[in-house]
Amino acid sequence: MSKIDQRFVLPQRYAGAEPSVWNEYIQMAIDYKPLNLGQGFPDYPPPQYIMDTLGQVATKSDPILHQYTRGFGHPRLVRALSKLYSKLVGRQINERTEIVTTSGAYEALFSAISGHTDVGDEVIVIEPFFDCYEPMIKYAGGTPKFIPLRLKEVAERLPTSADWVLDKKELENLFNEKTKIIILNTPNNPLGKVFSMEELTHIADLCKKWNVLCISDEVYEWLVYKPHKHIRIATLPGMWERTITIGSAGKTFSVTGWKVGWAYCPANLMKNLQMVHQNSVYTGVTPIQESVAIAFEKEMERLDSEECFFNSLSKELEAKRDYMAKVLVDVGMRPTVPDGGYFMIADWSPLESKVDLTAEKDKYKDYRFTKWMSKKVGLQGIPPTVFYSTANKHLVENYVRYCFIKKDETLQEAEEILQRWKSTGK
Amino acid sequence: MSKIDQRFVLPQRYAGAEPSVWNEYIQMAIDYKPLNLGQGFPDYPPPQYIMDTLGQVATKSDPILHQYTRGFGHPRLVRALSKLYSKLVGRQINERTEIVTTSGAYEALFSAISGHTDVGDEVIVIEPFFDCYEPMIKYAGGTPKFIPLRLKEVAERLPTSADWVLDKKELENLFNEKTKIIILNTPNNPLGKVFSMEELTHIADLCKKWNVLCISDEVYEWLVYKPHKHIRIATLPGMWERTITIGSAGKTFSVTGWKVGWAYCPANLMKNLQMVHQNSVYTGVTPIQESVAIAFEKEMERLDSEECFFNSLSKELEAKRDYMAKVLVDVGMRPTVPDGGYFMIADWSPLESKVDLTAEKDKYKDYRFTKWMSKKVGLQGIPPTVFYSTANKHLVENYVRYCFIKKDETLQEAEEILQRWKSTGK
Repeated sequence: MSKIDQRFVLPQRYAGAEPSVWNEYIQMAIDYKPLNLGQGFPDYPPPQYIMDTLGQVATKSDPILHQYTRGFGHPRLVRALSKLYSKLVGRQINERTEIVTTSGAYEALFSAISGHTDVGDEVIVIEPFFDCYEPMIKYAGGTPKFIPLRLKEVAERLPTSADWVLDKKELENLFNEKTKIIILNTPNNPLGKVFSMEELTHIADLCKKWNVLCISDEVYEWLVYKPHKHIRIATLPGMWERTITIGSAGKTFSVTGWKVGWAYCPANLMKNLQMVHQNSVYTGVTPIQESVAIAFEKEMERLDSEECFFNSLSKELEAKRDYMAKVLVDVGMRPTVPDGGYFMIADWSPLESKVDLTAEKDKYKDYRFTKWMSKKVGLQGIPPTVFYSTANKHLVENYVRYCFIKKDETLQEAEEILQRWKSTGK
Repeated sequence: MSKIDQRFVLPQRYAGAEPSVWNEYIQMAIDYKPLNLGQGFPDYPPPQYIMDTLGQVATKSDPILHQYTRGFGHPRLVRALSKLYSKLVGRQINERTEIVTTSGAYEALFSAISGHTDVGDEVIVIEPFFDCYEPMIKYAGGTPKFIPLRLKEVAERLPTSADWVLDKKELENLFNEKTKIIILNTPNNPLGKVFSMEELTHIADLCKKWNVLCISDEVYEWLVYKPHKHIRIATLPGMWERTITIGSAGKTFSVTGWKVGWAYCPANLMKNLQMVHQNSVYTGVTPIQESVAIAFEKEMERLDSEECFFNSLSKELEAKRDYMAKVLVDVGMRPTVPDGGYFMIADWSPLESKVDLTAEKDKYKDYRFTKWMSKKVGLQGIPPTVFYSTANKHLVENYVRYCFIKKDETLQEAEEILQRWKSTGK
């Protein structure tokens, strides 16, 4: 080891850090070219008007839109967000002091977690969880405390995401004097669980009892299937004061590559996020933020109409969800039907005899299953153990996560691949 | 103080953090509407083809360009950067392992500083310095050690940025066993100093002697005025191994609002930056990165031509620099003529009798001068003490920083404002 390698190791706070699953699985998709139901983004275009808007902003608008904008959020965008969420949350949200726009919801999570976690703080994380929560908590010096959603016994029907529930007593036992934050993700990735009013009320009561902050990751807020309804925990009594809510233009408008996210919360909580944002990214992309603002202005005019993209997208996805579930059942897997989001997990263990799990060396079975399927069968999913802490990974080793925000032809191709595998083993 | 306010204070590592100068001065520009020579961006359009490129990428290219791209850098962009910098640095730079693209050079600085600073490390910072270096070092647990460039005695001519020099002995005395990093900024903001081969060699020798990393912020690399030449410290003997070089599409193509930056360095140093990037922002904006890649491809074809934007921009700016210097001399200030960049600092103390420094309450005279000028005279500059540590702010309290990448009419208007002030006092 050279003296340079010896010296420039990772700082102690990053000890044990690992490359994220995405790097490995994206590389595998490039190398083996499976049909990719891995990452969460559509394989078809976003609405035409969204692309046109960016095209017009780039060429026909004020050229000053190519220069730096306000660091805590482009004025036109924070105005649009304030207007929308003031209505949805039922209180006036100050566009200057109570909103920050970020480099994707990812940076909003980073700013919220890093801005409110100090050394020694405990942060409760509900499993399964978006995989970045854990390292973000640890790098800030916090200790994640995990609690899994568990699948209830379900007889004579397919389980749905609502069948995955927290044990109330177990959750209560996690709260203590050191608890600083609980991170909620509703609709949940990868389960698609849409937390009910009763579940949210229980969480809210604990937050108030223990003076705890709730970071609510609601990036799939518009992707909820009837009759389910997305409930913002910030609207529960006494919760606005202690909730940071996070959203995403990428998920809202099917433009994940635009990387615009936001957080809204009371100004006294927002200050901390602004400090992190100011010293890591500082400001967002002006023409992209302008375009998102214009898109919101358009959709707000037709919020209650079926034509509103927020409403039409979930309707479109509901059909894809039902098709995906049928495909997985037909091949012999046992999916959990999601009430929200665009992912579906499925138990593949009835088909274990059809894969050679000894062909891969990974510790967890779902890694070996998904790698084998990518390389040998030509269909890529994500191993759901990435969304669990080490202690609880065993709960989902028999599962795979598929993304269904894909063209109908893509989903049909997935069906053909799975049927061929079922009948021929490859 | 409510129990919420008591509990959700800033984490200890952010103690003493303050809002950045930019928030206050941008707000003042909005409120008082002075002619704004504050922030560093042009008030005229970027090249037409740049805007058109983004317009075409948004509407006519593959719609998959609106979705997530590779986290460590969009493939087409890292390929272009590898091609360009391999040529400029004189060695093959691996596009996968030795480059990361970031949310502006700002996030590249954050990833480099945060990825290589551990608790107790000392980081040498040359003053004046871009103001984010200091909080970024402190939040990582490091200790910044400052050393100012000092203006030599200059008789019978205007000083130039080359007259601001480090004391060699003073620099040598700063290095010790705890020194982990030195941050270099060439061309320097706000001085415009282009470090000479002799100066860089001295810094390089100390880095090698003490096994220290050099973070070289070269965002103004193309903005250098003849006969001066930008020298990349990574090209000095033995320095590739210990240098992280940072660049900016915003500064290179006059699109500061696009927020695309990058860092390049050997893979063993890059790993740490990737870890920070992966856990704060994760990935950049796809259509913007695609557009920057196309712009680089175009400019690389004509790199040695006068039409190359990198060459034409500096020529255009040289005339603006000379005009700005003349304006400031005519009004009675003493500017330092920059060899690079698009900022000019000027000593306004000969005109102190024409301002009422008691009208503002700020601690430092340059804050009071620039606020008075913004509000009463209608011309906004930036107080250069923001670029100095507390101990050395006194060195530039009599200075102001103006940005001259502005339309000729804007600069003429600045002249009129200053002349009116000189003759009428307002």
